[in-house]
Amino acid sequence: MLYNAEFALQRINGELLLLEFGDNPRELYEPLRYILGLGGKRLRPMLTLLACSMFEENYFKALKPALAIEVFHNFSLIHDDIMDQATVRRGKPTIHQKWDVPTAILSGDVALVEAYKLMMEVEDNLKMKAFRLFSQVAKEVCEGQQSDMLFEKKEKVSVGEYMQMIRLKTAVLLGFSLQIGALVGGASDSDAEKLKSFGQNIGLAFQIKDDYLDSFGDGLKVGKTIGGDIRVNKKTYLFTKSLELGNHEASNRLLELYSREDNSDQKVNEVLEIYTHLNIQEECEKEIFNLYNLSISNLTGLKTNMHKTARLRRFADELIERVF
Amino acid sequence: MLYNAEFALQRINGELLLLEFGDNPRELYEPLRYILGLGGKRLRPMLTLLACSMFEENYFKALKPALAIEVFHNFSLIHDDIMDQATVRRGKPTIHQKWDVPTAILSGDVALVEAYKLMMEVEDNLKMKAFRLFSQVAKEVCEGQQSDMLFEKKEKVSVGEYMQMIRLKTAVLLGFSLQIGALVGGASDSDAEKLKSFGQNIGLAFQIKDDYLDSFGDGLKVGKTIGGDIRVNKKTYLFTKSLELGNHEASNRLLELYSREDNSDQKVNEVLEIYTHLNIQEECEKEIFNLYNLSISNLTGLKTNMHKTARLRRFADELIERVF
Repeated sequence: MLYNAEFALQRINGELLLLEFGDNPRELYEPLRYILGLGGKRLRPMLTLLACSMFEENYFKALKPALAIEVFHNFSLIHDDIMDQATVRRGKPTIHQKWDVPTAILSGDVALVEAYKLMMEVEDNLKMKAFRLFSQVAKEVCEGQQSDMLFEKKEKVSVGEYMQMIRLKTAVLLGFSLQIGALVGGASDSDAEKLKSFGQNIGLAFQIKDDYLDSFGDGLKVGKTIGGDIRVNKKTYLFTKSLELGNHEASNRLLELYSREDNSDQKVNEVLEIYTHLNIQEECEKEIFNLYNLSISNLTGLKTNMHKTARLRRFADELIERVF
Repeated sequence: MLYNAEFALQRINGELLLLEFGDNPRELYEPLRYILGLGGKRLRPMLTLLACSMFEENYFKALKPALAIEVFHNFSLIHDDIMDQATVRRGKPTIHQKWDVPTAILSGDVALVEAYKLMMEVEDNLKMKAFRLFSQVAKEVCEGQQSDMLFEKKEKVSVGEYMQMIRLKTAVLLGFSLQIGALVGGASDSDAEKLKSFGQNIGLAFQIKDDYLDSFGDGLKVGKTIGGDIRVNKKTYLFTKSLELGNHEASNRLLELYSREDNSDQKVNEVLEIYTHLNIQEECEKEIFNLYNLSISNLTGLKTNMHKTARLRRFADELIERVF
């Protein structure tokens, strides 16, 4: 079967609706169905199917692990939303907002269990490998979220610490989505590792792009107010890089601005001036381009045909095209 | 090796201290080590080793699943304490109290992953069975906790609903602790099922005893104030049974008392009068005795020697002896 992204997405959405987690008590499972029904790009399960399709005609062989990853991703969204006190997700109230915090904690817990169950529906000879890799990723995502929260309380964060945090919080799951899809498709361990590295690097690039757009994007296009990160003193790639590059005066001024509870336009503008003065836009583009090149180099030597590898390249291109 | 409870407990405590979950970020793993270090009777892992010893000389073969169950139990304690807004556990501050709610959510999440990892260290031919049973129990514990919270908002709860809630919240994990220990020890599925039923029934009896002691226990012995459940309007076996047995007048009075935010001695005394008038003490003793007998009958026909079965009988006796 030829890989067809539109068909794959429809199938994922359809299967997510059909998952039967349980019914009793209704208040435990309804929130899970609710958040899974909010839609989204289904980026991770799509990557799993895409990776599988590179090595196996019947790429729906990877459907269960693809669903597992989407359910896991939603587990982390449910719990992160509580921690971040987020009230809205994809235009709808978050679970702890619509129900309450206890319900959100428990729905998340149950989602993690269901993700494990789906993951273990891979074929027998892959079960233990899938289990080990998935458990490792699950821990790393928690570690990343904890680091992210710790950064809120720290005055300074280095570029290295920041990169490690986004690797854990975001990139490893993207890498694993590809890795498990490849393994289910029959790829060698080393090819699956290559796809994992590709996914991680492109994930890092994507996160830096996200930071970049928050400060320098076209507000209308991005769909949110410019400078949101600056207003809430979020440590981003731009912030950490500025501390690294700035002289004593610029760094101190930036730290001083970030120590204030102030979400004014004036503060945003002053921080943007520091960024611009330090050429942070160019630094971001350079780093994104580095990571992009690295991710492309991860794809060399794969035992699949060029046409199939090209799909992943196109994916990488699309992810970062808005930057350049 | 002869089963030795004191030695088993020491070994469990020692191994819990040695578990290496990770170190980075410290703030994620320290809370987990903290709660595991608070001690306790280690009832569940002890049951796992005890069950294993009934079928296998080297009962430490069940050490990893025993540890898995204790780590899982602590996962549920961490998250339950957030939901119940409990500030103290075993005389020490709860995790969300000592750290914060986000840290407690994440530490709990990581504990669930670690519990899975330990559970999957059973021998190969048992892995998938252990995984399925454990996942089912994990879901049921969440379902029980959700039901318990829903009861807080309901005016009436039937005895049947109450029994189902405590079965899920407490009894299934006790049953599973024995079942998995037996399976690791080489018991047949049917013998392991018998131990599971024994554990569930004795778990139900234990919970009803706990409810009973809260209202009619010797305050000094029990170590808490009498009537704590009544003061916070907790739906217990005594409450649900009273609604079942009471006439219109008694039920309405009880519901009226339970609709108040009132933790006075006067309210406690009035509820206790209703309980006493309806002979609820005797009803509790009858139900506990029924469940005790049921649990003992679950032990007939086990393919192990009487001496080993006697240990479980003694365990059952000790658990409920304080009632009679």
